[in-house]
Amino acid sequence: MIRGRVVGRVWSTKNIETIPNGALLEVESEGGGTVVALDIIGCAEGEAVLVTQGSVAASHFPNVKAPIDALIIGSIDE
Amino acid sequence: MIRGRVVGRVWSTKNIETIPNGALLEVESEGGGTVVALDIIGCAEGEAVLVTQGSVAASHFPNVKAPIDALIIGSIDE
Amino acid sequence: MIRGRVVGRVWSTKNIETIPNGALLEVESEGGGTVVALDIIGCAEGEAVLVTQGSVAASHFPNVKAPIDALIIGSIDE
Amino acid sequence: MIRGRVVGRVWSTKNIETIPNGALLEVESEGGGTVVALDIIGCAEGEAVLVTQGSVAASHFPNVKAPIDALIIGSIDE
Amino acid sequence: MIRGRVVGRVWSTKNIETIPNGALLEVESEGGGTVVALDIIGCAEGEAVLVTQGSVAASHFPNVKAPIDALIIGSIDE
Repeated sequence: MIRGRVVGRVWSTKNIETIPNGALLEVESEGGGTVVALDIIGCAEGEAVLVTQGSVAASHFPNVKAPIDALIIGSIDE
Repeated sequence: MIRGRVVGRVWSTKNIETIPNGALLEVESEGGGTVVALDIIGCAEGEAVLVTQGSVAASHFPNVKAPIDALIIGSIDE
Repeated sequence: MIRGRVVGRVWSTKNIETIPNGALLEVESEGGGTVVALDIIGCAEGEAVLVTQGSVAASHFPNVKAPIDALIIGSIDE
Repeated sequence: MIRGRVVGRVWSTKNIETIPNGALLEVESEGGGTVVALDIIGCAEGEAVLVTQGSVAASHFPNVKAPIDALIIGSIDE
Repeated sequence: MIRGRVVGRVWSTKNIETIPNGALLEVESEGGGTVVALDIIGCAEGEAVLVTQGSVAASHFPNVKAPIDALIIGSIDE
């Protein structure tokens, strides 16, 4: 997983419609890059988070073919 | 997912034929790199998009073994 | 796999609850980057470890959809 | 997918024997790195190609556990 | 796949025990980074090799949940 911090939110009206419910948050990783991750636990801007990437992000949603490759799996205690 | 912007389109006449219908768009990511992603929602050059990568891009197409590792899952509202 | 060294531990009280038991350790890779990996074999700070990444990290836990993309699979003999 | 150009070919006599038939071509990506990808459509040196990476490259071969993580899926029209 | 050269071997006495038999070799890739890959074909230090990465490395071992994300699939003829 990567550590990161929520720096914004992305809105998408035109999409492929199998994206699970949740917010699409921009997360700046410690290393400097930025990833857009699905958030289903309710994180706020500035919050430190753990992001998992790849197919395991989609596997969390067993009944859909979720087309996501990044998921916030936890808020980091600070 | 990564944020990016459509900068071009790629055409391939000679291919392995299991590529799903759609456009192969060149997307420049925020980080600077470029990825060619399949577009099935109709994005135009200059449009800001969200790209998912890896096997989840292929999983969106349940009845074929789609050989794609990048899919535009949404247009970003601007 | 990547070689790395344990440099810290991450605590997350608010999380998505399917994370398997174990410690979330920060591992600095030889190349310089940092990854947070699940540790189920009991590694200490400063220990040299091998980290596997991607869906194989989750596959180690057969009965759950573990949302992890990094797992310490061994301590390196030094 | 990444865009790249074929710059060479790799030969391997000693291998794990489940590699599908095809050529192992060295492809230089636009970004500058080099990847060795399996070619089953017959590309020549200097040809511009699209390369897919990760497990979808192996999924193209349904009856074997192909140990490949990069596959040329098309030649780019120029 | 990536081209690389074997530069060392890693030993791990304390591990998660589902690692398949073979050697854990350090491979320096052409690009400069280093990866630890499982070797089941018997490569020596200095040998040029092809390394596959990700879940396909684990898929080569059908009867176990091999926790490996890098496998040497061939020695490169030189």
